[in-house]
Amino acid sequence: MRKPVAGVMGGSKATPEVAEMAERLGSLIAEKGWILLNGGRDCGVMAASARGARKAGGTVIGILPDKTAAKAAPDLDMVVLTGMGDARNVINVLSSDVVIACPGALGTMSEVVLALKNDKHVILLGYNDVPPDLARFHKRGQLMLADDPEEAVTRAAAVLCAIGQH
Amino acid sequence: MRKPVAGVMGGSKATPEVAEMAERLGSLIAEKGWILLNGGRDCGVMAASARGARKAGGTVIGILPDKTAAKAAPDLDMVVLTGMGDARNVINVLSSDVVIACPGALGTMSEVVLALKNDKHVILLGYNDVPPDLARFHKRGQLMLADDPEEAVTRAAAVLCAIGQH
Amino acid sequence: MRKPVAGVMGGSKATPEVAEMAERLGSLIAEKGWILLNGGRDCGVMAASARGARKAGGTVIGILPDKTAAKAAPDLDMVVLTGMGDARNVINVLSSDVVIACPGALGTMSEVVLALKNDKHVILLGYNDVPPDLARFHKRGQLMLADDPEEAVTRAAAVLCAIGQH
Amino acid sequence: MRKPVAGVMGGSKATPEVAEMAERLGSLIAEKGWILLNGGRDCGVMAASARGARKAGGTVIGILPDKTAAKAAPDLDMVVLTGMGDARNVINVLSSDVVIACPGALGTMSEVVLALKNDKHVILLGYNDVPPDLARFHKRGQLMLADDPEEAVTRAAAVLCAIGQH
Repeated sequence: MRKPVAGVMGGSKATPEVAEMAERLGSLIAEKGWILLNGGRDCGVMAASARGARKAGGTVIGILPDKTAAKAAPDLDMVVLTGMGDARNVINVLSSDVVIACPGALGTMSEVVLALKNDKHVILLGYNDVPPDLARFHKRGQLMLADDPEEAVTRAAAVLCAIGQH
Repeated sequence: MRKPVAGVMGGSKATPEVAEMAERLGSLIAEKGWILLNGGRDCGVMAASARGARKAGGTVIGILPDKTAAKAAPDLDMVVLTGMGDARNVINVLSSDVVIACPGALGTMSEVVLALKNDKHVILLGYNDVPPDLARFHKRGQLMLADDPEEAVTRAAAVLCAIGQH
Repeated sequence: MRKPVAGVMGGSKATPEVAEMAERLGSLIAEKGWILLNGGRDCGVMAASARGARKAGGTVIGILPDKTAAKAAPDLDMVVLTGMGDARNVINVLSSDVVIACPGALGTMSEVVLALKNDKHVILLGYNDVPPDLARFHKRGQLMLADDPEEAVTRAAAVLCAIGQH
Repeated sequence: MRKPVAGVMGGSKATPEVAEMAERLGSLIAEKGWILLNGGRDCGVMAASARGARKAGGTVIGILPDKTAAKAAPDLDMVVLTGMGDARNVINVLSSDVVIACPGALGTMSEVVLALKNDKHVILLGYNDVPPDLARFHKRGQLMLADDPEEAVTRAAAVLCAIGQH
C-alpha cells in the first residue's frame, strides 16, 4: 500500500517564524512515515518544509510550475516538472490525501479553495481564524485550524484514518 | 486591434436574482462591444451571462473543463475544450482583460484569487463586502465592488481604459 | 448553432511556399464561414493562416502557450492565454471540429497524433505521404492527404458534414 | 543530489512479450538506483514496468491523467493526480531525465515527439526502426534504438552521464 501524502502549501515568502514552523511540520510528517508533497520551489514554506522532512529522513516530492528544475528546492527526492504555471496548483491538491496550509498569499489561498472544491480536508496552520467565506467548511469539519505543527499533524492523522489512508 | 475581453465568473448554481443580474451583465458587456468570456457550462452564471450577451448581439467564448461540448451553454459563439478540469480556471483569468465575479462558490473564489495573483483587476458584483483576506487588493484598487451590472461595467470600462485595452 | 471550428496546425517556421499555402487556407476557411483556430503565435503557419482568414473577413482564435499576448499574431480576433506551454496543444485539438495540419516540426506532429487519439479527423496539407506509423488511420479515413488548400477545405467540409457540424 | 528519473512510456495495451520486456526494464531501472516514472495506470506497459521496478526494490512514480487514484497501478510508490487527460503527457516527459519508449499507440507517440521537442533523449525499445519523420533526431543521437531492456538501460546510463545526472 502506498504511503499517505501530506500536501504542504504556503507562501513563497515566509517570515523566520513561519519558515521554522514549516520546517518543524516537515520533520513531523517525515516521522509519521508520510510523503510530503509541496510546490517544490527553493523558497519560503516550500524550501523549509522540504528541509525539515529530509532532516528527519522523509521523502519529499515537489510539483513545480516550471519546465526545468532550475528553481527546485535542494531537499526534494522527486521533482515533477509541469511547465504549467499556476495550473500546477490543481495537481498539488488532487495529489494530496490531506492538505496542510501554512500562511501564504494568493497561491496558497487558491490551493486551499481548490482543495476544498475537490473534497480534500484542509488544515490551516498558523492562521488566526478561518476566512469568513469558508466558515461552512469549518463547521462541517472539512476545514480545520491548528496552532502548531504538532496539532496539524495530529489532525492530519485523524483525516487519513477517516479516509482510510492510514 | 482586438476587442477587450471581459471575463465573467460565478456559480454553476445561481438564484433567480443572480441569474438575472448575470444576464443583464452579459447584455451590457455586449453593448460595450467587448467579448464575454466565461466557463462555458450550461448552468448558473455561465449560461445566464452568455444568454444576455447573445440577446444583445455580442460574442461569447466559453472555456470548458470538459473534453467535449456536451455540457456547453447554448449561447456560446466559440467553445474551447480543455479536458483539464479546474486547471481551466487559470486559463479563464489569464485570457480576460478584466474579471467580473458574480456570486459563486469555491470555483469562483479560486478564479478571483488567481486573477489577482496574475495582476488582473477584479470587480465583485453583488457581494456585500470584500473578503477580509483580500482587503489589501481593495485598498490598492485592484479589487472593486459593484452593486449592479451597470456599475460593474462602468468600473470595467475604467480598467480597460487604464490598461490601454479600450 | 455554433460555427464549425477548423483547427490549423503547422510550423512556427514556414518557407514562403508553406506560408502562402497557409494564408490561402485561412482565406478559404473564412469564406466557408468557419472559425479558424490555431496556436496563435506571430510566426509561421499560425501568423499566415490568421492573416488569410482575416483578409477574407473570417474569425480567428489563437490558443497561446504563453501567459501574455506579447507574442500573439496580429490577426487574431480572440486570444486564449493558457500559460501551459506544450500542454496547450491538447486544447488546440480538442477544440477543433476538424484539424488541418500544414508542414511543421515536432509540435505539429504532436498535434496530429493527439488529434487522432481524440477521434478527430486530420487532413495533412502539403505532405508527400502519410507517416508509416499512422497508415492505419489513413486506411480507415480518419487521416487524409490534401495537395492544396482547396482540396483540404473540400475534405474538411466532408468531415464536418459527416460529424453533423455543418 | 536527486536520483535520476527514467521515464518509461508505452501502450496501455501490451502483448505478453511487450509486458515482459517492460517488467524487465523496470527491474533494471530499479537496480540502477533510478526512479521510474510512468503514466501510472493499471494496464499495459505502465503496470508491467512498475511491477518490475517494485520487485527489484525500486521507486515508482505514476503521473495519472485522472482526478482520482481509482485506475492507478498497484506498484506505485507515489501517485500524481493531474485531472488533465492527455496534457499529463507533457508532464511525463518534462519530469524525465531520459525517456525510454516501449511499443505503444498514439499516446506513446505523442510522448516521444514531445520529449524530443523538449530536448530530452529518447530510447525506442523494441521498435524495428526509427520513424522516418524522426530520422534527423536519430542521426544527431537524440533518438536511439535498443533491442532489449539491457541495451536500453545501457544507453540511458550514457545519456544520464552525458547530461550530468549520473
